Amino acid sequence: MIHFVMPRSTWMGWMAPRQDGETAQGWIHRSLREASDGGLLRQGAAVPSTRALATHLGVARGTVIAAYEQLAVEGYLESRGGSGTRVSVAVPPTWPLRPVPRPLAAPRRRSAATLAAETPLARVVLGPGSPFPAREVGAPRALAPHQPDVREFPVAVWQRLHTRCWRRDGPALMRDAPPQGDLRLRQAIASYVAVARGVKCDPAQVVVVASVQQGLDLVARLALPAGASVWMEDPGYVGARRVLEACGADVRPVAVDEDGLDIGHARAIAPAARLAYVTPSRQAPLGVALSLPRRRALLEHAARTGMWIFEDDYDSEYRFNARPIPALKAMDTAGRVLLAGSFGKLLFPGLRVSYLVLPEGWVEPVATALSLAARHVPLLPQRVLATFMEEGWLDRHVRRMRRVYAARAECLSEQARRHWDGLLQLPAVQAGLDTVGRLAPGHEAGSCALRLRRAGVHVHPLSSYACVDRLPPALVMGFAAYSEAEIAGACQAIGKVLSAPG
Amino acid sequence: MIHFVMPRSTWMGWMAPRQDGETAQGWIHRSLREASDGGLLRQGAAVPSTRALATHLGVARGTVIAAYEQLAVEGYLESRGGSGTRVSVAVPPTWPLRPVPRPLAAPRRRSAATLAAETPLARVVLGPGSPFPAREVGAPRALAPHQPDVREFPVAVWQRLHTRCWRRDGPALMRDAPPQGDLRLRQAIASYVAVARGVKCDPAQVVVVASVQQGLDLVARLALPAGASVWMEDPGYVGARRVLEACGADVRPVAVDEDGLDIGHARAIAPAARLAYVTPSRQAPLGVALSLPRRRALLEHAARTGMWIFEDDYDSEYRFNARPIPALKAMDTAGRVLLAGSFGKLLFPGLRVSYLVLPEGWVEPVATALSLAARHVPLLPQRVLATFMEEGWLDRHVRRMRRVYAARAECLSEQARRHWDGLLQLPAVQAGLDTVGRLAPGHEAGSCALRLRRAGVHVHPLSSYACVDRLPPALVMGFAAYSEAEIAGACQAIGKVLSAPG
Repeated sequence: MIHFVMPRSTWMGWMAPRQDGETAQGWIHRSLREASDGGLLRQGAAVPSTRALATHLGVARGTVIAAYEQLAVEGYLESRGGSGTRVSVAVPPTWPLRPVPRPLAAPRRRSAATLAAETPLARVVLGPGSPFPAREVGAPRALAPHQPDVREFPVAVWQRLHTRCWRRDGPALMRDAPPQGDLRLRQAIASYVAVARGVKCDPAQVVVVASVQQGLDLVARLALPAGASVWMEDPGYVGARRVLEACGADVRPVAVDEDGLDIGHARAIAPAARLAYVTPSRQAPLGVALSLPRRRALLEHAARTGMWIFEDDYDSEYRFNARPIPALKAMDTAGRVLLAGSFGKLLFPGLRVSYLVLPEGWVEPVATALSLAARHVPLLPQRVLATFMEEGWLDRHVRRMRRVYAARAECLSEQARRHWDGLLQLPAVQAGLDTVGRLAPGHEAGSCALRLRRAGVHVHPLSSYACVDRLPPALVMGFAAYSEAEIAGACQAIGKVLSAPG
Repeated sequence: MIHFVMPRSTWMGWMAPRQDGETAQGWIHRSLREASDGGLLRQGAAVPSTRALATHLGVARGTVIAAYEQLAVEGYLESRGGSGTRVSVAVPPTWPLRPVPRPLAAPRRRSAATLAAETPLARVVLGPGSPFPAREVGAPRALAPHQPDVREFPVAVWQRLHTRCWRRDGPALMRDAPPQGDLRLRQAIASYVAVARGVKCDPAQVVVVASVQQGLDLVARLALPAGASVWMEDPGYVGARRVLEACGADVRPVAVDEDGLDIGHARAIAPAARLAYVTPSRQAPLGVALSLPRRRALLEHAARTGMWIFEDDYDSEYRFNARPIPALKAMDTAGRVLLAGSFGKLLFPGLRVSYLVLPEGWVEPVATALSLAARHVPLLPQRVLATFMEEGWLDRHVRRMRRVYAARAECLSEQARRHWDGLLQLPAVQAGLDTVGRLAPGHEAGSCALRLRRAGVHVHPLSSYACVDRLPPALVMGFAAYSEAEIAGACQAIGKVLSAPG
């Protein structure tokens, strides 16, 4: 294994001349690939930091990050925590299976040759980078937030159910499934949300979708004419904000305080909003619950103005010291709330099964829209999940993980007390998979997060979730996906980095 | 088992009084459910035909169809081929698992209470019915078109690969996957399209999507500003047309003749189209191939005007007497063609894995858009499929099915000669899963299809694929999914129905 680190001065020597009409990202991507294929960059060689290369080339850092991520996905680069990004030692063994045909040598006339940012979706995806979509795959790195621990999942049970479903339902699994979702799964979900979320509903109100994102996308495309205004929590879940923007909505950032979404602020800045996106049970990312008076005010406003409420109930089952807070949907007598829940955080993200519980008049349009825009969620995981739920495995798993995650939250608190005194202040963690630590005055969250990343700790600055800068410097960090040893190690590293001169 | 058929005069007696603000579909749905739950409609009882009920109630027939389909999905109704639709004898055994909570009794004030048709997607899904989305699940009924035979799929091999992938890649399968798709699958697809479709591409140009519909939806949302005009084959694939309409496009129906899409007509009616949707290898549903001069003209127009071409290459691998016609993408030197292919017809529809092969500058936007709008295709089926392809199973299966389908096409021709003389004229079937039979003068395709449906033969009138009425009366019928005995039986039934007085 050769660890040939290029001298700093020749770091960028492998950049090829930029071709006419080539995007900056394509240029970086091609240069690094050609340099690696051609032996100019040896295996194990460090590549410059994204910041350094961006400065050197005079391009946005997001462009370099995107190129590096693409190269990582292709197996050319690998990130090694503290020691930066390097050229992969082992080019993936299956690459190439046969000589890789080069892309067609297209004549590089570029009149209307590339995609222009002429639609809301194109403006979002071609616009400046954001933390979404997360391109990192593989095991999450401590203490990346919003991650469950898939290592604790009863995978043997799941596999057994897979085999059983194939054996029992083979031909049905190979055919197209109803776009609304498998009836057995919808029944299991209706029973589940009744018990776990306090929401009484009929299986006929449930639509199975691939992800909460997909549910929000369909709902927004159905309900929001171009330019319609939407209440969006700020700080809030960036993925949701981007989906709403991509549908052409006028997304209004509404302040969040210790009682959740500030309804008064929302009413003031967008009295005629068509939709509100909220995470009432555990605000993402702040972790606060929407207070009862605020819930009432929100529902009352919706009933009065005809606003729809999209309730993203993403991880509220994990509350450690009390019963989960019932969903807002449980109080929805006027039929204004569209409840969305996911099994990604409860079970594992790769499952790609989520659900919507919809008011009257919404089921048929959403199922038809899903069927148009994506057909349906595959039946196999739906059947496996239905069986998993019917046989009590879901309840058992959630109960067990609640204990595991509570212990890890407690471990994080303890380690924080030991290593972070005066540097980073943590609230009492009572729920969820992550929390927000407030930085001592004088720290800047973005640069802290970057320095921590270099030390192998992957936390997010709170500011990356916000549109409007009204927040104290803080870091969003996960605990659920990491062992107590991993948490202790990361807390120590954080203490070290934050106490060192910036 | 009680087969209590109500006397014709009391057929509609179970309709409940319509509630204030209730949609017609909701009214029919609720009435039939309540009548069934309350014992007013007994198990096995015939319900009126959709046409009769629509006439009786004075509502659109599509509304009744939608309500019946919903009830069928919920297990209340079942269709029994020749004997019409009946109340299910066995309400699904798992229903209800526990007393089904009734939907929340929402106060029925209806100011802005239901979804309005204010967006292109809402206008499509709330608009008049269409053959899409197909709500029929379960085994296809002879001779429903566009269906492969899943009974012939090597399901034991597939299950074995499932188990192997779980064992080998368990933790990776549980995590989020790269939105562009699994690298191993993208490599397999690049190798596959090179050999099978004549398209040289790099795995970096491939994006894995859930369905061709999803690919088209993302492409249209990225490339089509509101009102942008699109060339759409007419007759053509209704699912695609509806997706384009749902994205707000101005979809222009372009005539199709024996050489495929009429480029001259297209240029005349929409010279500045942003996108063309085409099925060049085997036009859906007519089955003709786009001629070489037309291919050149289409590519030339696209290169000159900056139009994009969406090539839906949905079942072109099945050509019986010659090598498959190379994809249009194989000639695309200017980088204007977005090739979409599906494994749904090659393997089985429930798989939900399709792919796009994209020109430069499109991969990153499409992958990001997919990640926003739906996250990613689950990794498990991607890995299983990649292994299936790497180990040669796909090639073997396609080669075998080509022989099976060719024999069935031949059987259809023979039976047609025997039973349809002078009634329905069939072209020589050389490819695909279905074909179009031309009706003798005096027949009306829509009413023929309805009468055939009552006789248990599920064919589509060609007119249901068209916007503009410029076609002779004809029926679209499948042969691939049915045994030779099933084909013979259906042909005999068709002969009998068509020779009977209409």
